[in-house]
Amino acid sequence: MPARVYLDYNATAPLRAEARAAMIAAMDVVGNPSSVHAEGRAAKSLIEKARAQVAAALGADGADVVFTSGATEAAALALAGRGLACAGVEHDAVASWCDVSLPCDRDGRVEVRDAAASALQLANSETGVLQELPEGLAVTDATQAFGKIPFAFNWCGAEMALVSAHKLGGPKGIGALVLKQGLDVAAQIRGGGQEMGRRSGTENVIGIAGFGAAAQAAQADLESGRWGEVEKLRNILENALAESASEIIFVGKGARRLPNTCCFIVPGWKGETQVMQMELAGYAISAGSACSSGKVKASRALRAMGFDEREAASAVRVSLGPQTTEAEVLGFAEAWSKAHARHKARAA
Amino acid sequence: MPARVYLDYNATAPLRAEARAAMIAAMDVVGNPSSVHAEGRAAKSLIEKARAQVAAALGADGADVVFTSGATEAAALALAGRGLACAGVEHDAVASWCDVSLPCDRDGRVEVRDAAASALQLANSETGVLQELPEGLAVTDATQAFGKIPFAFNWCGAEMALVSAHKLGGPKGIGALVLKQGLDVAAQIRGGGQEMGRRSGTENVIGIAGFGAAAQAAQADLESGRWGEVEKLRNILENALAESASEIIFVGKGARRLPNTCCFIVPGWKGETQVMQMELAGYAISAGSACSSGKVKASRALRAMGFDEREAASAVRVSLGPQTTEAEVLGFAEAWSKAHARHKARAA
Repeated sequence: MPARVYLDYNATAPLRAEARAAMIAAMDVVGNPSSVHAEGRAAKSLIEKARAQVAAALGADGADVVFTSGATEAAALALAGRGLACAGVEHDAVASWCDVSLPCDRDGRVEVRDAAASALQLANSETGVLQELPEGLAVTDATQAFGKIPFAFNWCGAEMALVSAHKLGGPKGIGALVLKQGLDVAAQIRGGGQEMGRRSGTENVIGIAGFGAAAQAAQADLESGRWGEVEKLRNILENALAESASEIIFVGKGARRLPNTCCFIVPGWKGETQVMQMELAGYAISAGSACSSGKVKASRALRAMGFDEREAASAVRVSLGPQTTEAEVLGFAEAWSKAHARHKARAA
Repeated sequence: MPARVYLDYNATAPLRAEARAAMIAAMDVVGNPSSVHAEGRAAKSLIEKARAQVAAALGADGADVVFTSGATEAAALALAGRGLACAGVEHDAVASWCDVSLPCDRDGRVEVRDAAASALQLANSETGVLQELPEGLAVTDATQAFGKIPFAFNWCGAEMALVSAHKLGGPKGIGALVLKQGLDVAAQIRGGGQEMGRRSGTENVIGIAGFGAAAQAAQADLESGRWGEVEKLRNILENALAESASEIIFVGKGARRLPNTCCFIVPGWKGETQVMQMELAGYAISAGSACSSGKVKASRALRAMGFDEREAASAVRVSLGPQTTEAEVLGFAEAWSKAHARHKARAA
């Protein structure tokens, strides 16, 4: 059994050491954050510390950060009942509340017509393609971009943003809706009135503490230039893949992309098959997005970009992280090239 | 500064050692449970293990356990749009979706008229009063009872139940909706289709692992008779309080109650004041329920039971746990008696 190499950071990132430490420390804090006694106040202060950490990492000073169980819940809170327009490249968590009517080009760039009535992702999880956010945009899904590129909510032009902890090395099951001051949303989960009435329920104190620490650590990584190194590795990977497979299509390569994401198509070689062959070689990658309980279907995002059914079903995503090494990337390229040669031999 | 004694288990329980260990182990599992590779499958298997643990502890073999971010979200999922009837003793998370019209007596016992159109809690968080669940009941909020008394969902008569991890020593921010097989609910959080489409969003893997371990440990505590010991301590406490304050009213004492809960009223002595005085003496207790971000208002539950505004505002809750000792209980009674004597002196 070969050693495992994890190249699926866009599905979820390993827990950062800082998040782990903050979570373990939070395990000793006994109280309910709504309790007025010392134990309750200690729990409350962990939440407020994390809220400040997340706001700082997001450049959202003065904005409201409402903790939710993840970006998916934040999407429901921001979008339900509003009938905003979006493009087909949006995640299901966004698209399922929207009118999927905005066009996008072959590189995945979306054309927004009415910013105040639209939702637009900052980065696509499958392709890494980045969008220019128009001023006055109603909602941006910043889940995949947060922590990977510099971003300041206060200057991004959007009224609300969705973010998640686990994409940047925090725990799964915690995220936030960020709102400009003065805006409000109708609570979907009602009860005790936590999170200023926007989202009731006893807070996920341990998860929130982990989110805060991870956001802070991700911000430090960004500032240190770590992701510039990741981008170099991604480019090394793409060059190596292109050398061994002249027919390969790099999706979104004409657009600005996240530094870590490489989405490619070898038409006719199913993404699912590639994932399985790389799995056997010790590499964790994905075909399409990591949702829908493991069911692999042709990427809706790629179909929206104009790829046909066969091409979309042949897409694979490799996504790197701050811990990825050049040896891992070259090892992957070599293993993939061998599998590709076998595929060509079979197809011939 | 006196040593702290935590007597607010109904607000939230300290994290059990078993839950802590399971959560720390889960931190090393990297994958997204929806990913098909080995890392993803490892995360998925943690979730399914925990689902089996929770189902076993709940006596819900064969029922569907849908993990949510807590009982409050589970309540929204079970109750939104249904217009069920409930009584005023229900938690805000339930009452805010219901027609609060069912009567209850002075001991907090609710009279259900149409079981299939009603929600009824199994135990009240403020008073500990237990309800008899009628056959065919639409929804029971079992949050406060789960782990403190024997309970089997499959035999309880209800179609759905809400539960939470943190009341029985699991982490905050994770709970479940339990449904009889064949029932369904409309998803409120849509997207990737996790939890069989009932509740989208990447799963809180660490929290779920902690919930499973805590549920299993809580079940073992129950079977070992630990809560019988807790009940003895609660009765010792009530006898000691009654000895020093003849005017004291024990709320719900005429009904069957949770073994750990003691809710009492000294008319005219504000609950808030008592909580503060006990806080200074080193004891964490509460007035009313631990919600609404620390705002203390006269308990709606007690008003529903027929207590007047002044009485309801004078209520205090002491709730014990499996770790509570006789020395702690007697120490509390002594500290409270001194504060009570000062109150009487001031009032005279």
